[in-house]
Amino acid sequence: MEIRTILVEPKLEENIGAVARVLKNFGFSELYLVKPPDIGEKAKAVASHAYDVLRACENVDSVEEAITNSTIVAGTTSKYGISANKHLRMPFFSPRQLKDKVKGIGKSGILSILFGSEDRGLKREELMLCDMIVCIPTSPGYPVMNLSHAVAVVLYELSGVDIGTAAETAKLARVEDKERLFMHLKTFLDEIDYKEHKKDKTLLMLRRILGRAELTGREAQTLRGILRKAEWKIGTNKGRRIS
Amino acid sequence: MEIRTILVEPKLEENIGAVARVLKNFGFSELYLVKPPDIGEKAKAVASHAYDVLRACENVDSVEEAITNSTIVAGTTSKYGISANKHLRMPFFSPRQLKDKVKGIGKSGILSILFGSEDRGLKREELMLCDMIVCIPTSPGYPVMNLSHAVAVVLYELSGVDIGTAAETAKLARVEDKERLFMHLKTFLDEIDYKEHKKDKTLLMLRRILGRAELTGREAQTLRGILRKAEWKIGTNKGRRIS
Repeated sequence: MEIRTILVEPKLEENIGAVARVLKNFGFSELYLVKPPDIGEKAKAVASHAYDVLRACENVDSVEEAITNSTIVAGTTSKYGISANKHLRMPFFSPRQLKDKVKGIGKSGILSILFGSEDRGLKREELMLCDMIVCIPTSPGYPVMNLSHAVAVVLYELSGVDIGTAAETAKLARVEDKERLFMHLKTFLDEIDYKEHKKDKTLLMLRRILGRAELTGREAQTLRGILRKAEWKIGTNKGRRIS
Repeated sequence: MEIRTILVEPKLEENIGAVARVLKNFGFSELYLVKPPDIGEKAKAVASHAYDVLRACENVDSVEEAITNSTIVAGTTSKYGISANKHLRMPFFSPRQLKDKVKGIGKSGILSILFGSEDRGLKREELMLCDMIVCIPTSPGYPVMNLSHAVAVVLYELSGVDIGTAAETAKLARVEDKERLFMHLKTFLDEIDYKEHKKDKTLLMLRRILGRAELTGREAQTLRGILRKAEWKIGTNKGRRIS
C-alpha cells in the first residue's frame, strides 16, 4: 500500500521542509501540498538530505484533487479537536490503530493522510472527506503538536507496515465509487422523507461506518443495487398511487 | 516512573524549543540540557505554549550530572549509529521495546533518555554511560532524524496518554443489537423484492461490511431507523394503493 502525505494549506515553508525529511527518514516519498506558500531556501535547509522528496512534491489547488485515486483517506486531528468536532461523531483511531487497519488491507491502493494547517488544523469540510480520523494521543495541557512532529509520529507508526499477502488484496472501492454511493444514500434519505434536521448527521455517520468497513468496489456496487431496488419499490408504488 | 529528557550539547536553540513543545505535548516536563547554546527568542517562538517547560529546564555541564539519581539511562542513536558503534556490543531496543521495558519496572524511579547533538549524535563515552540503547527504526536511505523529531517519536511511545480509551468508550453494539439489525435487513430485502438467489450472498456481504465497521450501539439503531423510514414509505404507498 502506498502512503501519500498531504499537507493542507501549510503556512510555513520550514515545516514543509521538515516534513520532507520525515518522509525520507521513514522511507516514504509521496508528498502533496494543497495551496502551499512559496518554497525557498528555508525549506531546503530544513529538508537537508531530503531535498529530492521536497522537489518531487505535488502542488495542488484542492483537497479533492490531492486525494484522487485514494483507497482510504485519513484525516488527522489533535485531541483538542475531539471535543471541538464531537458532532462529527467519529470514532478516532490512534496512529497504531491506523497501522493495524492498514495491515489488514493488503498490498494495493493508496492511503492518503491529511494534515491541516498549523494554525487551525483540518476544517470541518475537509474532515468530511475522510474515511477515518486519526488522533495522536497528546496531553490536554498542550494537545497541539507542531505539524512536522505530527507527521513524524504517524509515519513512524506506518513505516513498519508489512505488506499483506496477495489473498488479502481484494480491490478496495475508489474514492469516486464511494462518493457515488454517498450521493445515492443522500438521495435515498430524501426519498424516504428522512427528517431534515437529522440528515447531515446521519450521512456523516454512514460515511464513517462505510469508511471503517473499507468497502471493496464490488461491495459498494451491491449496496447501490439494494438502494436501487428499494427506490424502484418506492417509485413503483408511487406510480400506482398516481394512476 | 519519571521521564527525564536530556539533550547532550544541542547546537540549535530552535531544536531546544521544539523539544520543549514535544515534552508538553506528551505530558512530560523534565528537560535537562548539557552545555546548551544561549536560549533566546527563536527557542521561545518554537516552544510556543511550552515556554514553561523551556524556562524550567536544567542546564548542566556534563552528562554525569544530568543523569544523577536516574534508575535507568537510555541512549538514543540512529540506525546509522548501529554499525558505527557496533563495537559497543549492546542490544538495541526500539522505542516500543523501551516502553515495554519501562512498564516492567514499575512506578518509582527516573528514566533518563539521552539525545546527542544534531551533527554527530552521542559520543562513544556517552553511550558507555547508558544502560540501554534505543534506536528508532529509520530508512537506510536517510536514517538521521532531526533531533526534535527523534524526541517526538520516543516520547510518543512512552506517553501514558492513550487514545484507545476514546475509541473504545464509544459503546460498541452488542451481538443482540447486531442480530436485530441483520434480521431487519433480511426482512427489508424481502420487502424490496430483492432477487431470491442473490439474497443469501448479499446478506452475508452486509454482515461482513458491518462487522468490519465495528458499529456502535447508536449506529446500529440509526441504521434501523433508516430502514424503518424506508419501510414506512413503502408501506404507506402500499396502504394508499390498497385503499
